[in-house]
Amino acid sequence: MTKNILFIMYDQLRFDYLSCAGHPHLQTPNFDRVAAKGVRFDRAYVQSPVCGASRMSYYTGRYVHSHGAQWNNHPLKVGEMTLGDHLRKLGMQTWLIGKTHMKADAEGMARLGLAADSVIGARVSECGFDVWVRDDGLNAEGPDGFYDRRRSPYNEYLLNKGYAGPNPWHDSANAGVTPDGDIASGFLMQHADKPANVREEDSETPWLTDQAIAFMQDHKDGAPWCAHVSYIKPHWPYIVPAPYHAMYDTGQIQKVVRAPQERENPHPVYEAFLNGIIGKAFHDDKVREVVIPAYMGLIKQCDDHLGRILEYLDDSGQMDSTMIVLTSDHGDYMGDHWMGEKDLFHEPSVKVPMIIFDPSPEADATRGTVCNALVESIDLAATFIETAGGEVPAHIVEGRSLMPWIRGETPDDWREFAISEYDYSGTGAAVKLGMAPKDCRLFMVVTHRWKFMHAEGGFRPMLFDLHNDPDELEDLGESDAHKAIIAQMYDHLFTWARRMSQRTTISDATITEKRGASRRRGIVLGAYDAEGISDEILSKYVGPAPEVPDVT
Amino acid sequence: MTKNILFIMYDQLRFDYLSCAGHPHLQTPNFDRVAAKGVRFDRAYVQSPVCGASRMSYYTGRYVHSHGAQWNNHPLKVGEMTLGDHLRKLGMQTWLIGKTHMKADAEGMARLGLAADSVIGARVSECGFDVWVRDDGLNAEGPDGFYDRRRSPYNEYLLNKGYAGPNPWHDSANAGVTPDGDIASGFLMQHADKPANVREEDSETPWLTDQAIAFMQDHKDGAPWCAHVSYIKPHWPYIVPAPYHAMYDTGQIQKVVRAPQERENPHPVYEAFLNGIIGKAFHDDKVREVVIPAYMGLIKQCDDHLGRILEYLDDSGQMDSTMIVLTSDHGDYMGDHWMGEKDLFHEPSVKVPMIIFDPSPEADATRGTVCNALVESIDLAATFIETAGGEVPAHIVEGRSLMPWIRGETPDDWREFAISEYDYSGTGAAVKLGMAPKDCRLFMVVTHRWKFMHAEGGFRPMLFDLHNDPDELEDLGESDAHKAIIAQMYDHLFTWARRMSQRTTISDATITEKRGASRRRGIVLGAYDAEGISDEILSKYVGPAPEVPDVT
Repeated sequence: MTKNILFIMYDQLRFDYLSCAGHPHLQTPNFDRVAAKGVRFDRAYVQSPVCGASRMSYYTGRYVHSHGAQWNNHPLKVGEMTLGDHLRKLGMQTWLIGKTHMKADAEGMARLGLAADSVIGARVSECGFDVWVRDDGLNAEGPDGFYDRRRSPYNEYLLNKGYAGPNPWHDSANAGVTPDGDIASGFLMQHADKPANVREEDSETPWLTDQAIAFMQDHKDGAPWCAHVSYIKPHWPYIVPAPYHAMYDTGQIQKVVRAPQERENPHPVYEAFLNGIIGKAFHDDKVREVVIPAYMGLIKQCDDHLGRILEYLDDSGQMDSTMIVLTSDHGDYMGDHWMGEKDLFHEPSVKVPMIIFDPSPEADATRGTVCNALVESIDLAATFIETAGGEVPAHIVEGRSLMPWIRGETPDDWREFAISEYDYSGTGAAVKLGMAPKDCRLFMVVTHRWKFMHAEGGFRPMLFDLHNDPDELEDLGESDAHKAIIAQMYDHLFTWARRMSQRTTISDATITEKRGASRRRGIVLGAYDAEGISDEILSKYVGPAPEVPDVT
Repeated sequence: MTKNILFIMYDQLRFDYLSCAGHPHLQTPNFDRVAAKGVRFDRAYVQSPVCGASRMSYYTGRYVHSHGAQWNNHPLKVGEMTLGDHLRKLGMQTWLIGKTHMKADAEGMARLGLAADSVIGARVSECGFDVWVRDDGLNAEGPDGFYDRRRSPYNEYLLNKGYAGPNPWHDSANAGVTPDGDIASGFLMQHADKPANVREEDSETPWLTDQAIAFMQDHKDGAPWCAHVSYIKPHWPYIVPAPYHAMYDTGQIQKVVRAPQERENPHPVYEAFLNGIIGKAFHDDKVREVVIPAYMGLIKQCDDHLGRILEYLDDSGQMDSTMIVLTSDHGDYMGDHWMGEKDLFHEPSVKVPMIIFDPSPEADATRGTVCNALVESIDLAATFIETAGGEVPAHIVEGRSLMPWIRGETPDDWREFAISEYDYSGTGAAVKLGMAPKDCRLFMVVTHRWKFMHAEGGFRPMLFDLHNDPDELEDLGESDAHKAIIAQMYDHLFTWARRMSQRTTISDATITEKRGASRRRGIVLGAYDAEGISDEILSKYVGPAPEVPDVT
């Protein structure tokens, strides 16, 4: 059965801010509906808790340590294969609608003579996607210019709608209005309780939803497609238009997950983050109290517009031929563990929602179930390749297809641990700790029971017991009683670090097939004489010796 | 001072088969002359003891685990930067004269639309080199066709000279004549004592030397160059033209280095190799006795023709402006440790000659000295970049410049261990051991005192004490007394395996420079209100709030 794939990503959506994942106050009936029709993976980890690196893993199916784009705006090197490369070979179009946070490797493209306006160059520049619309959703501007130098189609939309320029993304969609009638920038969190100064239908989430629906209308027939619908929200600036700005009050905020003991003898890297500007801001309850309701409103808005997509699929009869995937590139601490934003490996940051609806009959067995297998974000690329009818090229794509789980099978060789990484070389924490870039690297190993972090640069590890301490409040990294566990985690990390990740030009099957081929191509080794060597093998090496020609 | 670089490689040249390295019977005055003018590094290790993988490390300056071309004929993936990419940017031409054993990534090139006949495509296809002449020197042919499907300029040379076709590479240059007048193939080692059926001046080593001299004559003026003069010899087939075939007798063979204990409880991977076809052949002394004198003759011939190159440099006045590098891609067991050929990590296989003559006055302090620093073959790429006047891009090139040693400095942060790797997935040993390709990977760690091997797939390690057992006859891999050492070696390997090898699109300096830049581009994080944030930073976010336009 030919299927399309609707691969929907919400930026910075915490795993537990959905009613199907247990949020007590935030009702997300449309996410829940997909979960009820599909499988919700509740141990899904991103390969890096930061937009750029995480996304490059989603789009390549490879660990950050493999593709090398370790942080936001690290160019993805030319030559790395992406979803588009894999799926197009299988006859599946691969489209982008929204954000990727991908920076092209302009130097590499110039070195290889790839023009950005050729079909190949355009795809290489856009992480393998054909672009329906790209908007990274961060049209921020400061004294040194724009954060993102590419054009913003969303800003152009607002300008066309009559919103005042030059940057209605900020001044209207991501700001409110002060009592004095001034711009109340969403970048100042005190304004998170104000309605964004934009009509709801002109805000980012509905705008991108319209784009997604227009794409689907335009691609009803023809080759199957994988469409990456990639929302900027509920990512900051934390500000949402009416009526969503006023839907939740402080009584509906989940209890903060933090304990004084976390700050008593903290891991030095964790300490640098929790005492950074963002961490410190979230130590103050008033920040949580103003930000979280806005964040919940942003998610509620996402859910409502997901409802429009589901409705379109129902109405157009495409629900039965569309795989739907709902996920995020990382979470948001929201004050938990004395942290804001993302960056480290506590569950609110590194674990993401992952809901997959597969319309195929083979998936009937698992509808509405929750799967607690250890899932990595790179598994989606493999899943999509299988869905498109291909075999996963395991020498390139490091993730594994989730289809067995979706069919209700339990692979007996599923991974025992998941990995995530974080490179903080570009952050204030690196400055504070005085670290050279190469040492600013963190690795997480998580098993069913344990969560471990190794930091380069001579630091001790961190360890949490997820069974006895599911809130990750007690760091056992210095516990003598856990030395054996820590050794085991190091062993997992070591096994992973040695993995073969770069032999991407030749598959295991080809290697096995070619064993012994060189002898049949004339390379005869270890032979003293012809004994035991067939005449066929030596056939080119016999006959009367030629004469040495006269000197000419 | 502008210098050219003559980067000469001899294929399969053992480190100790030179008189300057202590061979008692093989006189190599020309190698010795370069050593007397330069520095001989006597702890130089290749990144993999097999042609293809080793060379890809030389040419990229990166570990095999980083570039991924793990064995012969594994394509070097498009996008990997090579010597040519680095040196041309610095105004240095980069030429190939001889062998690379590089297989182009045809699939990757097609994916990126690179035509092999464009300048860029041609360089990508040839490992970054401009090709003066390429000849990989293995024009072997069997029932399934030629080992190497590209044209052989050397074969064409022989045909032009009147040697009989179709394959005079084999029938004349790499075969002798039996008493009955038949072809005595050099692939059968019993024939190694015969003279090759070719005039000496038409054999491979003089032919390539002529090419090298012609290149230098043609490039006397103009931009500086790095020329990779890459001989196939003394690589098998072990057969050499007169008079070299008769220069050495069995009395001049070095004593075999092997002991019965090596076969008593061997490491399973080592056992598979020593009991393979090649290993077994070399258990028989008659094989060593016929092969080694031919191998010595091949090296003597290389030395004589090196003399011609030195003479050309002297006569043309270029000796003072040419860096000369003499090295190999791996060694040759020659029966030591019950092994033939290469593949594993005993010194005869993994250690190579490495002699560097730098004509600059700064190198005067070290002329004629021996340096015992732990050197890796990837260090040459870095050395050449520094010689060409560049800064080594440490985020791409993993080797380190040897120039400090050549200037007589002792860097205080030089590496404490060197790494080599071997992927035996394509070999008979893999079949014998029943190993999946991904588990057929070996890693060597060598320090000043210890040599360690880790094998994937659940095997124990190997360990040698190079101080007390310089011949590497006693494997301490199971010794309880050495558990701490083994743990230390694993720790080195772990550190290495975690290294950042793929973040090749952005340098440490750029990252450090960009720290904090996002705030100046409008990304204001962790701010509750404007307190402590300068007006300049917020300058784009102030003013009267715009009106929401009427619905149009």
